Amino acid sequence: MEHLIEKTISSKEIFKGRVIDLYVEEVQLPNGNKSTREIVKHPGAVAVIAITPENKIVMVEQFRKPLGRTIVEIPAGKLEKGEKPEVTAKRELEEETGYTCTDLRPLISFYTSPGFADELVHLFITEKLVKLKELAQLDEDEFLDVKEVTLEEAMEMVQNQQIYDAKTAFAVQYLQLKQALKE
Amino acid sequence: MEHLIEKTISSKEIFKGRVIDLYVEEVQLPNGNKSTREIVKHPGAVAVIAITPENKIVMVEQFRKPLGRTIVEIPAGKLEKGEKPEVTAKRELEEETGYTCTDLRPLISFYTSPGFADELVHLFITEKLVKLKELAQLDEDEFLDVKEVTLEEAMEMVQNQQIYDAKTAFAVQYLQLKQALKE
Repeated sequence: MEHLIEKTISSKEIFKGRVIDLYVEEVQLPNGNKSTREIVKHPGAVAVIAITPENKIVMVEQFRKPLGRTIVEIPAGKLEKGEKPEVTAKRELEEETGYTCTDLRPLISFYTSPGFADELVHLFITEKLVKLKELAQLDEDEFLDVKEVTLEEAMEMVQNQQIYDAKTAFAVQYLQLKQALKE
Repeated sequence: MEHLIEKTISSKEIFKGRVIDLYVEEVQLPNGNKSTREIVKHPGAVAVIAITPENKIVMVEQFRKPLGRTIVEIPAGKLEKGEKPEVTAKRELEEETGYTCTDLRPLISFYTSPGFADELVHLFITEKLVKLKELAQLDEDEFLDVKEVTLEEAMEMVQNQQIYDAKTAFAVQYLQLKQALKE
């Protein structure tokens, strides 16, 4: 949509970090005026809806420093440079849950915060889980508890804000929709 | 979950912007080791599922500088300081779509990017839209096109990545679920 485009006048690097970079860009608005945009660059991420043979959803509880609390999420992680999302997804599943999978399907991808960040999350689903004999190594700054919950338990966890993030809320709703369409 | 908590050792302000602030925190991990966390502070946001009397979903198309492209989203916007989410939701609906509403229900809230940001999105729904006689004023750096689409059209827009963000994908799926439960 040509008439909505903002042109970059200048881009200033504010911060280059381990996970994110921050830029402030001066832009020309569609009406010719100028404004600034604060832009977080992120490598992108994956998340996995993993269903056990007992029809439970595999979740991980971890402390999220930006929120100052733990929340319960589907397994997820950042893309390594040059890594294909399906490779990251399998790796994160193995590292975080003690399961691997023999089948992994891409479900949907979405930007999480298009107003200020370019983080794109690729969501996968697997119903073919296999217990790992040896646990994969977590990242050295990662600590989490694995939980296997039913869909009904997950819906309660959305209600009481233990599940409190977009990708996991989407995942739970996806499974509700799948069940509703089956019935 | 006590054994997962990360303690703040120090917090350094890197950037204070118009929309976001950035901090780098040194933390003590649960095992006693140290690490750093990059944390974006955001005022929080609202988004509105707005259904017209003709049973169409009101969407807005806008250019998102972090993505370098336009995407189609449900009406949304940042919280002003001290503003209640339902007030922001009605204001953003009026500013962005030319509709106001006589009923607005909170649906769910979720963090969008808990790994690096504290942005919390409050999602509302209204099926009681009233056309405004006079258009409300958009923010001076905001340009967008309003679109009214059917659920089927919205589902296609998810497929072809015109709808490409978490809150809007959640909203479309919510309406699919609602329809599936009715049938």
